[in-house]
Amino acid sequence: MKRQNVSDAVIRRLPRYYRYLDDLHGKGIVRISSSTLGEKMGITASQIRQDLSCFGEFGQQGYGYNVEELRTEIGHILGVDHHHRLIIVGVGNLGHALMQNFRFHDAGFILEAAFDVSPALAGTQVAGIPILDMAELERFVLEHRPDVAVLTVPHSAAQSTADRLIDLGIRGFWNFTNVELVSDVKNVRFEDVHFADSLLTLSYRITRR
Amino acid sequence: MKRQNVSDAVIRRLPRYYRYLDDLHGKGIVRISSSTLGEKMGITASQIRQDLSCFGEFGQQGYGYNVEELRTEIGHILGVDHHHRLIIVGVGNLGHALMQNFRFHDAGFILEAAFDVSPALAGTQVAGIPILDMAELERFVLEHRPDVAVLTVPHSAAQSTADRLIDLGIRGFWNFTNVELVSDVKNVRFEDVHFADSLLTLSYRITRR
Repeated sequence: MKRQNVSDAVIRRLPRYYRYLDDLHGKGIVRISSSTLGEKMGITASQIRQDLSCFGEFGQQGYGYNVEELRTEIGHILGVDHHHRLIIVGVGNLGHALMQNFRFHDAGFILEAAFDVSPALAGTQVAGIPILDMAELERFVLEHRPDVAVLTVPHSAAQSTADRLIDLGIRGFWNFTNVELVSDVKNVRFEDVHFADSLLTLSYRITRR
Repeated sequence: MKRQNVSDAVIRRLPRYYRYLDDLHGKGIVRISSSTLGEKMGITASQIRQDLSCFGEFGQQGYGYNVEELRTEIGHILGVDHHHRLIIVGVGNLGHALMQNFRFHDAGFILEAAFDVSPALAGTQVAGIPILDMAELERFVLEHRPDVAVLTVPHSAAQSTADRLIDLGIRGFWNFTNVELVSDVKNVRFEDVHFADSLLTLSYRITRR
């Protein structure tokens, strides 16, 4: 499968394809043309064909895509079948919300544990996931080798917590702290969730309509 | 100010520009070249110049941009100075987290109230914001005319709650429900926050490194 120079924009569209295909599959739809899929997603059929061509050959001229096959393929490209292991660091309201409501499993992740500095939380569970004291972080990470840490610590603790986790070998960060994290260590990936960017986009659209 | 045919990609980059410029301004930086700004943001100088040219003329050839001026201009384009009014509908963990931690004011929004079906929550406050019973929604919205509703209700209540709010005249939705909402009403804008899209992007990057 070729996969050179895939642009950031294409990578960011892949999860959307996956989401739509998963939904279509759930509705029992077996086959879809690029034009129908594009219509649903608000993009052009040629955009879809061009995006997918970065990863190989999908679909059959005139027959469209097999929904389940394409979903599985895109899931594979995204690493959904890798079963990456993940920990949450910081169990405030947001960490709590993710533990309780977010379907890590559907994204191919296994949530193993959460960590917090609060002695009141350590030893408790949320949705069956244990919350451990931050003092146990080193032992746990060296023993379980999670791939990803969800950072839901306060702003002020963001970079130091990331550094501590990078030292322990964690390379993937799902970053909700609103801090632009930095690291010189090779292969470290920060994926930032900036709520404000999304709200400002909405602001633009309701202001300029 | 010209503003025709601004692409979705450009609109989505504006909040990032605003965030970086706000940060630079906070650090006391007065002037920045498009190449230095581009380096910080991981995009090219020509991309920046091209994006901004959609909205008018900014900066001076050879002198770069005045940070504060450009920040204010982009804030204006985004509608940050509009002081849009907003309500939160659904005070579970996520609604709670937003009330407690999200700086609505920095994005130019005024959070006026939150609503929940739980009788235990009605009449209480979070971070100084009153939580009202869902039965008061009609009266409140007709009286206060908020511009935006943050939807943090469960999946199953998403579309019906959106419909109810659209009937009351609300046109902007910050949608955390993971449901693709639809409406035939003119000028309704849904801005969806899909956590999973972000996590799947990270999955791709750590799988394919």
